[in-house]
Amino acid sequence: MLIVMKPTATARDIDAVVNVIEAIGLRAHAMPGATRTAIGITGNEGPVDGRRFENLTGVAEVIRVTKPYKLITLDLRPDKTVVRVGDATIGDSKFAIIAGPCAIESRDQASAVAKAVQRSGARFFRGCVWKPRTSPYTFQGLGEKAWGILTAIREEFGLKIVTEAVEESHVDLIEKHGDVIQIGARNMQNFSLLKRAGRSRLPVLLKRGMAATLEEWLLAAEYIMAEGNYNVILCERGVRTFAQHTRNTLDLASVPAIRRISHLPVIVDPSHGTGTAYMVTPLARAGIAVGADGLMIEVHNQPELALSDSAQALTLSEYAQLIEQVRAIHSLMTSDGEGQLKTA
Amino acid sequence: MLIVMKPTATARDIDAVVNVIEAIGLRAHAMPGATRTAIGITGNEGPVDGRRFENLTGVAEVIRVTKPYKLITLDLRPDKTVVRVGDATIGDSKFAIIAGPCAIESRDQASAVAKAVQRSGARFFRGCVWKPRTSPYTFQGLGEKAWGILTAIREEFGLKIVTEAVEESHVDLIEKHGDVIQIGARNMQNFSLLKRAGRSRLPVLLKRGMAATLEEWLLAAEYIMAEGNYNVILCERGVRTFAQHTRNTLDLASVPAIRRISHLPVIVDPSHGTGTAYMVTPLARAGIAVGADGLMIEVHNQPELALSDSAQALTLSEYAQLIEQVRAIHSLMTSDGEGQLKTA
Amino acid sequence: MLIVMKPTATARDIDAVVNVIEAIGLRAHAMPGATRTAIGITGNEGPVDGRRFENLTGVAEVIRVTKPYKLITLDLRPDKTVVRVGDATIGDSKFAIIAGPCAIESRDQASAVAKAVQRSGARFFRGCVWKPRTSPYTFQGLGEKAWGILTAIREEFGLKIVTEAVEESHVDLIEKHGDVIQIGARNMQNFSLLKRAGRSRLPVLLKRGMAATLEEWLLAAEYIMAEGNYNVILCERGVRTFAQHTRNTLDLASVPAIRRISHLPVIVDPSHGTGTAYMVTPLARAGIAVGADGLMIEVHNQPELALSDSAQALTLSEYAQLIEQVRAIHSLMTSDGEGQLKTA
Amino acid sequence: MLIVMKPTATARDIDAVVNVIEAIGLRAHAMPGATRTAIGITGNEGPVDGRRFENLTGVAEVIRVTKPYKLITLDLRPDKTVVRVGDATIGDSKFAIIAGPCAIESRDQASAVAKAVQRSGARFFRGCVWKPRTSPYTFQGLGEKAWGILTAIREEFGLKIVTEAVEESHVDLIEKHGDVIQIGARNMQNFSLLKRAGRSRLPVLLKRGMAATLEEWLLAAEYIMAEGNYNVILCERGVRTFAQHTRNTLDLASVPAIRRISHLPVIVDPSHGTGTAYMVTPLARAGIAVGADGLMIEVHNQPELALSDSAQALTLSEYAQLIEQVRAIHSLMTSDGEGQLKTA
Repeated sequence: MLIVMKPTATARDIDAVVNVIEAIGLRAHAMPGATRTAIGITGNEGPVDGRRFENLTGVAEVIRVTKPYKLITLDLRPDKTVVRVGDATIGDSKFAIIAGPCAIESRDQASAVAKAVQRSGARFFRGCVWKPRTSPYTFQGLGEKAWGILTAIREEFGLKIVTEAVEESHVDLIEKHGDVIQIGARNMQNFSLLKRAGRSRLPVLLKRGMAATLEEWLLAAEYIMAEGNYNVILCERGVRTFAQHTRNTLDLASVPAIRRISHLPVIVDPSHGTGTAYMVTPLARAGIAVGADGLMIEVHNQPELALSDSAQALTLSEYAQLIEQVRAIHSLMTSDGEGQLKTA
Repeated sequence: MLIVMKPTATARDIDAVVNVIEAIGLRAHAMPGATRTAIGITGNEGPVDGRRFENLTGVAEVIRVTKPYKLITLDLRPDKTVVRVGDATIGDSKFAIIAGPCAIESRDQASAVAKAVQRSGARFFRGCVWKPRTSPYTFQGLGEKAWGILTAIREEFGLKIVTEAVEESHVDLIEKHGDVIQIGARNMQNFSLLKRAGRSRLPVLLKRGMAATLEEWLLAAEYIMAEGNYNVILCERGVRTFAQHTRNTLDLASVPAIRRISHLPVIVDPSHGTGTAYMVTPLARAGIAVGADGLMIEVHNQPELALSDSAQALTLSEYAQLIEQVRAIHSLMTSDGEGQLKTA
Repeated sequence: MLIVMKPTATARDIDAVVNVIEAIGLRAHAMPGATRTAIGITGNEGPVDGRRFENLTGVAEVIRVTKPYKLITLDLRPDKTVVRVGDATIGDSKFAIIAGPCAIESRDQASAVAKAVQRSGARFFRGCVWKPRTSPYTFQGLGEKAWGILTAIREEFGLKIVTEAVEESHVDLIEKHGDVIQIGARNMQNFSLLKRAGRSRLPVLLKRGMAATLEEWLLAAEYIMAEGNYNVILCERGVRTFAQHTRNTLDLASVPAIRRISHLPVIVDPSHGTGTAYMVTPLARAGIAVGADGLMIEVHNQPELALSDSAQALTLSEYAQLIEQVRAIHSLMTSDGEGQLKTA
Repeated sequence: MLIVMKPTATARDIDAVVNVIEAIGLRAHAMPGATRTAIGITGNEGPVDGRRFENLTGVAEVIRVTKPYKLITLDLRPDKTVVRVGDATIGDSKFAIIAGPCAIESRDQASAVAKAVQRSGARFFRGCVWKPRTSPYTFQGLGEKAWGILTAIREEFGLKIVTEAVEESHVDLIEKHGDVIQIGARNMQNFSLLKRAGRSRLPVLLKRGMAATLEEWLLAAEYIMAEGNYNVILCERGVRTFAQHTRNTLDLASVPAIRRISHLPVIVDPSHGTGTAYMVTPLARAGIAVGADGLMIEVHNQPELALSDSAQALTLSEYAQLIEQVRAIHSLMTSDGEGQLKTA
């Protein structure tokens, strides 16, 4: 914490600030400058809520220094986290593919897609059981009926099931029938849900919120980890901006930014990140080239008939081509899971 | 729905689109233009999911026409909704003030603030029982212990209690002890929570999400109303933008925009909308001048010691001055609750 | 400037940073904390470019402290600037109205509008001679032919002429025929144009750029003032955000934010700030209530036939009503030009 | 153009709209629907300014259909533009690298960097002569003194010179001494400058504005082309968003979006797009993987001493590694310059 005093602040104002700092058990370091004084604060273990200083007389600005997160940091754990789901992994040198339809619609649909997903070498099958929709009048997912279908897929194709929990009770059902709990962008700061996921033994795939800063996203992961569940996978899925040519603006710089701070694996979702089928493959290539640990891709056997997100789902053959392209780029990467090219 | 074909689209491409339109039971209106053909769709009762047309051959663009909401509209209900909470109202010609601390911290704090709120003529007392916080390591509210304090406030000062439900079980408790259910910005698209609030007999104050378009916000209200609860109050609290001089950018144009579309009352929260005490009063004045039905204001007996949001809480005397200023402007308004100045 | 070292930084890393600081003639203040060391820098007169420290070994973060502007600050000049244009003023207790059509289209149009502007008591007439348009295929203004019309308006109605300079040569012409040089949002960082305006004897109305932070906007004013022209009027006209219900998001919090930092007057443009006629009056009321020194309003004798910005122009009678409403609110303000309500 | 009437619009309202349409020489197509009528407009050659209809009685919404650009489109020119600069090209199957320091600082600096750029196989050398800076108090470039240095570089290393024109007179100098005119992000809508560049025989590299939609960016290119200069190279350099972990948010989806609409080549600038050296290489890899025609990279022989943008400049050895990595990915691409992977 650094408190910057106004040029007009008096010695008395400065003393008053120093007194408050010492009253809450911290150390004040006054640094007189050419035009004004700044006061550094040390002695804190975690972040200090400095907004309390903002309205004191003579204070120009309060600048936060200590970061508010702990468990997600490389400081705490210098080695990258590898999330294990049975014999499948996310975060090591193998590139993880999570693919499937937006929502489970029928046994035929799920089965046709799962077959293509398995054939591509992917180990994870996604498909919503409960589908959070902006409008109350659109398809909301099959609900619990979908579990029968997903259980059959898991058995027949040996794929791990990734599905979204929209409320706490869903976590119970995913723990019973699924493999990875997805927390969606709209629920990134649904703290009750984060805590419930934190008490699960299953890994959690945490999507970035639509307007989440990196810090807010990492703090959402911290909520899960603070409950004891350290198997968190971050998922960049685009943020809301003024741009109109895509549904969201995919912020691929978040991948190296997270690598610098955190040991958690991070994957990219170019399907939601663009919202349009023709952009998914180029952005998937970019996602792997930037160093992500994997991709989440929407694929449908008949996209034009999909009950949700029809514009962004790839056909089975487009999906097969995407995988081929992505593998070509991944073959250039180093084998240490650090998201670097061999030549680096 | 309007489907715009590419200049290169063939008669066959156009026929194929028309066939799909007719196959789903709607009427197609082809409009050949100088350089390309557009196809209008009618016959639909609600919105058509046009994204299914996007990847058909020859299609350049799909433009949505029908709005996805119903119950919130002036088309459905041309008279403005007045929400009644006992003998207090929101949405008529009286200006509603909801004021109180960010969170309930102690009986002394709540009591000191409630006294000032009552004295100002406000009818609603706000104060979080459960406080959603970005970091898991900061003060999360007193939880159920706060209810004893709030019950005493309600009895002693005759104020209506407005508090935020962070999860579904909280709605049960607010129904037992409170008067208005608040849904926070972070939960604006927590659809399970919206549905639960929709099944309550209490009014719901619905804050705009940090990155919510007007349409998404109104559809969140529609979720509540679709369950049978028509007493929804919208609350503009700022949106996330690149601007750094405030915590959020207060979008006051949303007030006239909502008035044009919806019968629901809308209030403004300049405390969260700016995040800084010195800006709250000017923006409160602007909120009433733009035509809002009320204000939500954070006030604390000792802001510098507040356990949350200390930088944006007004002192008791700043709050009293704000009320005086706001009443002066409100006295210029017409008495029909339409948010117009008398001179208009 | 504050340099935050990583927890893993060695004493050697810290020394290296201290050495660089001293090498550029400044003083280093090392503050060892519980987990890491921060190093304050003093001795600088202006801002230090701290980005040079970012890639040094052991550096976690570089935090800027000193603000980069000087001439615009209340530190330099504690009294508010009042811009004088002949006998008209902007920045004192009188509320300034700048009104007129988007662009000068004909003598009849300009004359009809100017008559209404004069009748309203406004002292400033706006109207583009050169109109910067997003598309090269739309109306670009009458160009120099418009000057004859404006000169006649100035003489007949005694109004001061405000018009936009799109390139440096335009400033010469405005100096010859006009009264206030407007720099538009798209040119807020056209530094050559800013410098040229800074060498003029005419006041400059500087619109905020579409994506400008407060700091960038104030630095653009600093460019003008650094050339010797201290008569700068700031104009908030909305910024670009994800919101779709308005053309721009009017950020009224910029008014109190500027008041805290700068002595320059600031006005609000609700016409460009919303882009839609029905919103202009409510947001104009909000602009004055928030404490702005004036308004810029687009008005047209036949908006539906306007050659540009037709959707946001008020009719003559809508404009008259706006002025009446705005005056009613302004009559509540204190007479010191500080943008406060009398009751405050 | 599609005009959507309100459900309450009368037959008279509809007729009035139809009359206006016919009065301006176009054809109206009324489409009565279940709840309301929509009116299509055809007969227009270019876009119609539909905002004039917005305030007519009974009109709910006006939806634009025709795009405002012509020359940039694939409709007009189905083959991709290849920009030729002597024997160097941008837009064909060879990947173009434009590299160099932010600004020319000295002969030694320029020469050291140019040597590395030449050695990497790049054909274009960038370096600002005039440097647009947010603050008037920071280094603004060497100005005309830099030309001597650049001329020597061009001769000694055979590199093509790319430099930014900040005002119209700079274009004259670039025509004399340089090879490619760069228009910076802050000047993307400086229409006078665009027109001047449009009258040049040199290719123009047009950076995307900080808050530019795709349409605005393409219309800026259209301004240049409308003057007769068809050699335009688009450059994605990130847009302004709420995100704080980068200086700008690099919007790589603009690359496939432009490919769909336009024949113009598009390159990516990960230096400005991220603002931080450690992110430049990962995002450069992503830029090529997404299908861009080239990269613009900032490199400096001593980044920690650079007079501008020091935090984002690569060292000479980091630059060499970047080139190696980018070439590895580019070797997987098809040879038709369409930005596709061979396997596609």
